[in-house]
Amino acid sequence: MKFYLNGKIAEEENTFIKPTDRGLTLGDGLFETIVAKNGELLKLEAHFARLRSGSKILQLPVPLTDEQLAEALLSVLKANNLTNAVLRLTLTRGLGERGIALPKNPVPTLLISASEMPLSSTEPLRLIIAKSTRRNQFSPLSRCKSLNFLDNIIARQEAVQKNANDAILLNTYGRIAETTIANLFVKIDGKLFTPPVAEGALAGVMRADIIKDFSAEEKPLDIEDLWKASEVFTTNAIGIRHVSEIDGKVISSCK
Amino acid sequence: MKFYLNGKIAEEENTFIKPTDRGLTLGDGLFETIVAKNGELLKLEAHFARLRSGSKILQLPVPLTDEQLAEALLSVLKANNLTNAVLRLTLTRGLGERGIALPKNPVPTLLISASEMPLSSTEPLRLIIAKSTRRNQFSPLSRCKSLNFLDNIIARQEAVQKNANDAILLNTYGRIAETTIANLFVKIDGKLFTPPVAEGALAGVMRADIIKDFSAEEKPLDIEDLWKASEVFTTNAIGIRHVSEIDGKVISSCK
Repeated sequence: MKFYLNGKIAEEENTFIKPTDRGLTLGDGLFETIVAKNGELLKLEAHFARLRSGSKILQLPVPLTDEQLAEALLSVLKANNLTNAVLRLTLTRGLGERGIALPKNPVPTLLISASEMPLSSTEPLRLIIAKSTRRNQFSPLSRCKSLNFLDNIIARQEAVQKNANDAILLNTYGRIAETTIANLFVKIDGKLFTPPVAEGALAGVMRADIIKDFSAEEKPLDIEDLWKASEVFTTNAIGIRHVSEIDGKVISSCK
Repeated sequence: MKFYLNGKIAEEENTFIKPTDRGLTLGDGLFETIVAKNGELLKLEAHFARLRSGSKILQLPVPLTDEQLAEALLSVLKANNLTNAVLRLTLTRGLGERGIALPKNPVPTLLISASEMPLSSTEPLRLIIAKSTRRNQFSPLSRCKSLNFLDNIIARQEAVQKNANDAILLNTYGRIAETTIANLFVKIDGKLFTPPVAEGALAGVMRADIIKDFSAEEKPLDIEDLWKASEVFTTNAIGIRHVSEIDGKVISSCK
């Protein structure tokens, strides 16, 4: 696979990240996962809006216009002869000296990679509620797609160890936030609900569509709400997945 | 400066991190900051113990023995002709495919860099209490020195904007956790206190020494405890710094 790095396209073995890049040393950056279908980049406006919102929170300027970003993404698709793919755009604060103080004249690193579109599984998900960690809704990071992904990795490892597909992360109040890679919707008495962003849910692009198209309501959700749900599903840029089980309890739509 | 990367020493421009390294893409790794004084590595046992404790939490094996790690650190000192320096050891989970699932056969990346020992400032610190974010004591990451450093960066930026040197991070209960780069001690009625690790304080190497040598007590600390303190100081591997002001209020030892 070929990568885009700061304006140049090259094979992986010729794409070099510097050892002082703050993306590596401090997780100081953002990313977006963007789906390409038949050569077209889906929901680009929403992805760029989220990237720019994260960029404000981190005070990490995006070095290109939306048009230039789109061009860069398309160039990676083309270089890899892909039409259906998952692209990942990574933006870091670039090189930094020792320590966490911001570099005086930061030159961001912009990296884009591509993967073939994964085979879409229609198998419903078996989830657990993570006990190993919680999502911090007090942090503005809960509202960015940042490179600080370790809480999600830890929760995912817990899920794998418990023979589940993924984990639901609770926020520090013990209420539902999201899964490690997706937003969560529940249907109760025929109505769709999803946790608000203030509860630690990432403002997912697909989430926004479902809220709009199905008049889903944003509402804090307790664990008990999961057991009341007739249907549970997750959403992310790649798609919608039904949930059959949570902590071994079968969701009624899957009974 | 020369870097160590997976067994090889090379100049920065010849030290290449791959674009699929999970340290970069997901912040999936750990680090330690180790001081060298007169060519000797300080508190090495404590640093390695913390690295290995973090490695258990993240299920990220350390690829070398303590002896080999020490050798690698010394080789970086030597290659750069340094005797008084700050070394940084970074361990990542190595290369990964798209997504957060753990690689099947991970080959960790081990990177070591060196900087000259910074001039030790004796100027007392002016701190603020961060309003921009909080430390998540529910996450095991609060007990690792992980690459997920963005909350600290955000709080530090807030401090800089408020014309202070650094910020105190509260935990999600609104109690004191630490500063963005150090542990915090307060003296009240002649006795030293510092927040327990369970409150979101990183188990600092210098912190452990102070607790032992000065019989400091680990105790949850409220903001109000700061105003009762006759003395406040911070500790990290690099040293001890006195605090003169917090949110503009002068600490009594500095009046």
